[in-house]
Amino acid sequence: MRTISWDHGVVRMIDQRLLPHKLEVVGFTDYREVARAITEMYIRGAPAIGAAAGFGMALAAQNSRATTPAQLRADLTEAAGTLLAARPTAVNLRWGIERMLATADRLLPQGVQTAQAGLIDEAQQIADEDVAINQRMGAHGATLIADGDTILHHCNTGGLATVDWGTALGVIRSAHEQGKKIHVLVDETRPRLQGAHLTTWELQQWGVPHTLIADNAAGYFMAAGKVNLVTVGADRVAANGDVVNKIGTYKLACVARDNDVPFYCVAPTSTVDLRTPSGNQIPIEERDPDEVLYVDGVRIAPEGVRAANPAFDVTPNRLVTAIVTEKGIVYPPFVENLAKVVNT
Amino acid sequence: MRTISWDHGVVRMIDQRLLPHKLEVVGFTDYREVARAITEMYIRGAPAIGAAAGFGMALAAQNSRATTPAQLRADLTEAAGTLLAARPTAVNLRWGIERMLATADRLLPQGVQTAQAGLIDEAQQIADEDVAINQRMGAHGATLIADGDTILHHCNTGGLATVDWGTALGVIRSAHEQGKKIHVLVDETRPRLQGAHLTTWELQQWGVPHTLIADNAAGYFMAAGKVNLVTVGADRVAANGDVVNKIGTYKLACVARDNDVPFYCVAPTSTVDLRTPSGNQIPIEERDPDEVLYVDGVRIAPEGVRAANPAFDVTPNRLVTAIVTEKGIVYPPFVENLAKVVNT
Repeated sequence: MRTISWDHGVVRMIDQRLLPHKLEVVGFTDYREVARAITEMYIRGAPAIGAAAGFGMALAAQNSRATTPAQLRADLTEAAGTLLAARPTAVNLRWGIERMLATADRLLPQGVQTAQAGLIDEAQQIADEDVAINQRMGAHGATLIADGDTILHHCNTGGLATVDWGTALGVIRSAHEQGKKIHVLVDETRPRLQGAHLTTWELQQWGVPHTLIADNAAGYFMAAGKVNLVTVGADRVAANGDVVNKIGTYKLACVARDNDVPFYCVAPTSTVDLRTPSGNQIPIEERDPDEVLYVDGVRIAPEGVRAANPAFDVTPNRLVTAIVTEKGIVYPPFVENLAKVVNT
Repeated sequence: MRTISWDHGVVRMIDQRLLPHKLEVVGFTDYREVARAITEMYIRGAPAIGAAAGFGMALAAQNSRATTPAQLRADLTEAAGTLLAARPTAVNLRWGIERMLATADRLLPQGVQTAQAGLIDEAQQIADEDVAINQRMGAHGATLIADGDTILHHCNTGGLATVDWGTALGVIRSAHEQGKKIHVLVDETRPRLQGAHLTTWELQQWGVPHTLIADNAAGYFMAAGKVNLVTVGADRVAANGDVVNKIGTYKLACVARDNDVPFYCVAPTSTVDLRTPSGNQIPIEERDPDEVLYVDGVRIAPEGVRAANPAFDVTPNRLVTAIVTEKGIVYPPFVENLAKVVNT
């Protein structure tokens, strides 16, 4: 089952806010609903957001009442603006939208209907490619995992963060399917608890042994020699290899370095943003403080207490051992080696 | 209002498990109830546990039906064993019990009734001293805080972790009462959320400006240059300055070091355990996995998922800038300087 798919003109996606307690699929027929679903995190994870952007643009194309290529282009430009504003940090959103606009510009000279049909095909292509790309990342990344390893994983980067299979968790899935006996320490990943809600749920389904821990406990297990490697995904990788990812990734990288535990980022080249030189130039989304103040609907602090809720942080490239892409494993120096891989 | 007190033969304490939603004081007349309250965390925080140990021993003395000094000593030895087993990591538990047993051995030659009365006095003395010690630590520690500083604080080390005033949070309180304009970033402190539940509640009462954050967000604020210093308490400080404290302290110290943010531990000399050479020899309590799997009664992971829940970790002395005690601020080399301060 895919996290997001196109079903005869309807975009269907799992409402991940209800997991692990309820598996519900919702359908959208308007790109504005898709934008809202991205903002409200029905769907999250950089590659899944990229696919959602593609399908959102496909809906905009399908629903357009344009009779001329120029009108359709105007409708698509408007949809692109709305979708791009849905979340600021994940570069795959921009990547998906730009790919759809490039497709439009290629097909519009052939008429409105050809462009509309082609855009729907292109969105499906993005989704299909994502699965194939994840499986290639899984194959590359699994070479970093030895039989008997314990892997510490932050956030959710599984099938639910992509169209299917996963990035960092996809690497774990690939190692498991190769028959390696592995164990995953799952960071619960406050404030939204993607680790507790989603990663454990996926690992259960795949049959991968795992243990949930408070994010605070990572250092304890590393100092005890019980962690062989860390795998995380990315919402955006800067040209120099700085990794923008779920809040807490940077703190985790610091304690991994203090224990000489290898720290791997797993991200498709669509997440690598060569236009941004370093992580400091990447906008960090501030989300609703209620995500900190409430856990699954229960308030954890006294009334009147305020909270701050940055959703991502920047892990400097010096703390990243390697970046696993679908085109291979990229080691430092990242400035040269990322550009090579992305431009291949 | 004190966290724990002696009221005509009854030990009264705030049931901290109900905060911040409900302020309820419970009374115990049997030392076994006090031991259970320590295990179940009605009361927590190393100095508060030390005072509870004293009052527990006082209850044992009061309730003893001994008619000879030897019988009373046997009753006290039994109570000491039960209380010592209540929690393994905080050294103040042992410290409080040993102080009470030493008092007993001094007074028992004067007869059962003299010893009983003297033990009750001694427990009250421990509690009174704790408040005075905290205020002295506050005065020393406040010299490290400048007007305008933002302080990041982990767990709860306030009046609720002591008899009154607090250790690391007491330093913040002292700086605030000196009129310094400060701001506190409060780590929520998963899994038990002492920061969200207790520290925000105390800061509200004192009128100290503060913002709650997910533990994962500490690195974000440090990298943005928004944190001037970190203050934490300790459950035990080894002879070499290794700090055993609430889970996540070590990870926080790593990210503080990566940002050159000073990292201060605030602990009375009763928390310094010169008999233990380094942190690695200190037993780390493993608590119920349900503390991770449930937040305020709500399950956060699918059924069947297992969790691990170490309650403390070891921050190596190389990551500790200084240790604030009631006798002054101790800087490295800790092996020499801690011994000097403790033995003065």
